[in-house]
Amino acid sequence: MLKVISWRNGCVKLLDQRALPLRTEYLCCRKVEELARAIEGLAVRGAPLIGIAGAYGLVLGIWNSDVKRMKSDFQYAYSRIKKTRPTAVNLFWALDRMERKFVSLTKVRGTPESVKKEMLNEALTIHRDDERICDLIGRHGAVLIKQGSAVITHCNTGALATGGIGTALGIIITAHNAGKVSMVYVDETRPLLQGARLTAWELAGKKVPSTLICDNMAATLMAAGKIDCAIVGADRICANGDFANKIGTYGLAVNAKYHGIPFYMAAPSSTFDLSLRTGDLIPIEQRSSDEVRKFGNCRTSPEKMPVYNPSFDVTPGELVTAIITEKGLIRPPFVKNIKKTLSGLG
Amino acid sequence: MLKVISWRNGCVKLLDQRALPLRTEYLCCRKVEELARAIEGLAVRGAPLIGIAGAYGLVLGIWNSDVKRMKSDFQYAYSRIKKTRPTAVNLFWALDRMERKFVSLTKVRGTPESVKKEMLNEALTIHRDDERICDLIGRHGAVLIKQGSAVITHCNTGALATGGIGTALGIIITAHNAGKVSMVYVDETRPLLQGARLTAWELAGKKVPSTLICDNMAATLMAAGKIDCAIVGADRICANGDFANKIGTYGLAVNAKYHGIPFYMAAPSSTFDLSLRTGDLIPIEQRSSDEVRKFGNCRTSPEKMPVYNPSFDVTPGELVTAIITEKGLIRPPFVKNIKKTLSGLG
Repeated sequence: MLKVISWRNGCVKLLDQRALPLRTEYLCCRKVEELARAIEGLAVRGAPLIGIAGAYGLVLGIWNSDVKRMKSDFQYAYSRIKKTRPTAVNLFWALDRMERKFVSLTKVRGTPESVKKEMLNEALTIHRDDERICDLIGRHGAVLIKQGSAVITHCNTGALATGGIGTALGIIITAHNAGKVSMVYVDETRPLLQGARLTAWELAGKKVPSTLICDNMAATLMAAGKIDCAIVGADRICANGDFANKIGTYGLAVNAKYHGIPFYMAAPSSTFDLSLRTGDLIPIEQRSSDEVRKFGNCRTSPEKMPVYNPSFDVTPGELVTAIITEKGLIRPPFVKNIKKTLSGLG
Repeated sequence: MLKVISWRNGCVKLLDQRALPLRTEYLCCRKVEELARAIEGLAVRGAPLIGIAGAYGLVLGIWNSDVKRMKSDFQYAYSRIKKTRPTAVNLFWALDRMERKFVSLTKVRGTPESVKKEMLNEALTIHRDDERICDLIGRHGAVLIKQGSAVITHCNTGALATGGIGTALGIIITAHNAGKVSMVYVDETRPLLQGARLTAWELAGKKVPSTLICDNMAATLMAAGKIDCAIVGADRICANGDFANKIGTYGLAVNAKYHGIPFYMAAPSSTFDLSLRTGDLIPIEQRSSDEVRKFGNCRTSPEKMPVYNPSFDVTPGELVTAIITEKGLIRPPFVKNIKKTLSGLG
C-alpha cells in the first residue's frame, strides 16, 4: 500500500495527490511553509488527512528549534498552518491537541530533544488513531449496506483522505469485502475531480466494481432505481447534524431525499464542531476562479468570466439518514443523539 | 453577428462549436457524410440547429444529382443524417418536412434544377422560420421573468443552438434587454461544457451579467436564495410534458422543486413528439466514455475506468412550471394544454 503521509527524519513526506492518477510523485516538506502550501494547493487533502498533516507540521515547526526559539517557532507554525484552509475542523482539532501537548511539555520544562520526541509521538498517535478510527467507521457503516447494493459517493474519502482505509469510502470497501456491494457510482466531483482522479483510482486498485459519472448524472440514475444508498464524508459537523462537505454534496442529498434513497454521512468524531449550533455558521472556503474557468492549462470559458467557486456546501441534518462515527451510528434526532454518542453514552 | 450556419454555393458552412471559445473556425461540408460527422461530433449541436443542419444536409444530398440518381441520393442522405443523433426530435421533424417537399416536387416531375432550387428554398425557410420562432419564444418567456431576477440555465440554448437568438437563452437575453435580469448563473454542463464554452461566451459577448458555476453548485445557490428561476431548453417533449434535455437538467429540476423555484422549459413546437405519451419512451443517446474519462487530450481517471455517459436525461412534466413555445405559454395540466396550444386553440 502507498504511504500517503509519513514522517521521515525531519521531513513530512506526502504523496502529491495533484499528480494522480497519472503519476505517483512525493513531496518532502522540510519547512512549515512548504507543508502549508501543500495543504493550500491540495497536494494533501481530505479532512482527517489535513488534520494529520497539520500535526506533523507542528513537529516540523520545532524540529530545528533551540530552547530559546521553540515557543515562538511553535506559535509561528501553529498560526501559519491554521490559516491554510478554513472549513474542515479536523485541522483545528489536531492543531489544538498538539498545542495542549506542547503546553504541558513546556510546563514541565523538558529538554528540547524530549519535547521534540514527545511532540512527534503525539503526531504519530493522531495518525495511528485515525487508522483505527477508519476501521471502526468501516465496520459500523457496513452494517447499513444491504446485500447487492449499488452505492453512490462524492469526492474522495478513502485512504487518500485519511490515515486509514477512509471514512465513507472505507465503509464501501468494508461492505465490498463482505460481498455486499454490486456497484459504486463515483461522482467525478467538479471542479478538481477528486472522484475521477482519486476515488476511481482507489476503487480500481482494489478491484471494486465501479462506474465513473459526471456529478449531474446522479439524479437520472436515482430515478432509474439504480442507486440504493449514498454515502459521503464531512469536513465539519454542527451540533444539529448540519454539515459541510465537498461542493455538490447538498444537491446530491436533495436528490436522494426526492427519490427516497438513504443518505449516510461518515466522519470521525474529530469532525464535529459542537460550538456551532447550525450549518450557516460554518465558514466556507472560496477558491480560485481558474479552477472552474480552466482545465489544467486549457481555458474552457471566456477570459475573465466571473465564477462562483465555493469548495464546500452545507447539507442540513434533516437530509441525513444516519451519521457514522467510530463511536457508532447516530440517528435523528441529531441534537440529542450527537451529544449522547460523542460523550460515550450512545 | 457570427453566422452559425449558412448555405454557400453547394456547401453547408458551419461554425465549428468544438473550437469555441478559444478559436472561431468554420467547417465547409460539401458531402452528406461530412455534415453527418459534424452533427455526430458536435461541431454543430442544439436541437433546433440540428434540424436546420439536417434540412441543408438533404439539399447537399441532391445538389449534384442528375434526374436518374436524385431519388436514391435523397434516400441515402435522409437515412444517413437520420441516424446521426437519436434524441432531439427536431432533426426528424426537419427531415420529414423536407421529405414531404421532395415527394411533392418529384410527383409533379420538376426538372432537377427546379427541384434543387425548391428544396434549398424549403431549407432556407426552415432556417428563417426558426429565427422568427426564437423571437416569439423570447417575447412570451420574458413575461415570466420578474424585475431584478437571477436566472439559472443549463447547457446552451442560444444563437449557437438555433437559427435565431435561442430558446431558453433567447428568453434570458430578451428579459435582459428589458432590464429585468440581475444575474445569469451558467451551469458549465459536464461533460462537454456547453455552458462554460458556449453560453458563457454568448452572454459575455452581449455583456449580460453572468457567473459560471460547476453543475453541482446550483443547489447551494438555491438554498442561499440567490436564484429566482431556472430556464432550460428541450430536445424532445412528450404529450404529458415529460421532456429530454441535456444531462443534468433533471437534477436541476429536482433541486428547483425542493427549493420552490419556478422551473421553465422553452422550445419550438417542432420539439414536441406527441406520439410519445411519457418520457420513458424517449431514446437516450449514450456517448463515448472518453468524454468523461478525459479532458481534451488529458486523461483524468484510471485507464479503462467504466463510465456511464448518457447525453440526456428525462425531466417529468410535473417538475415544470410552464412550457414556453412560439405559440405561447403552456401551463399544467400538460396533457390537455399541450394539445390545445399546438393545435392553435391555446
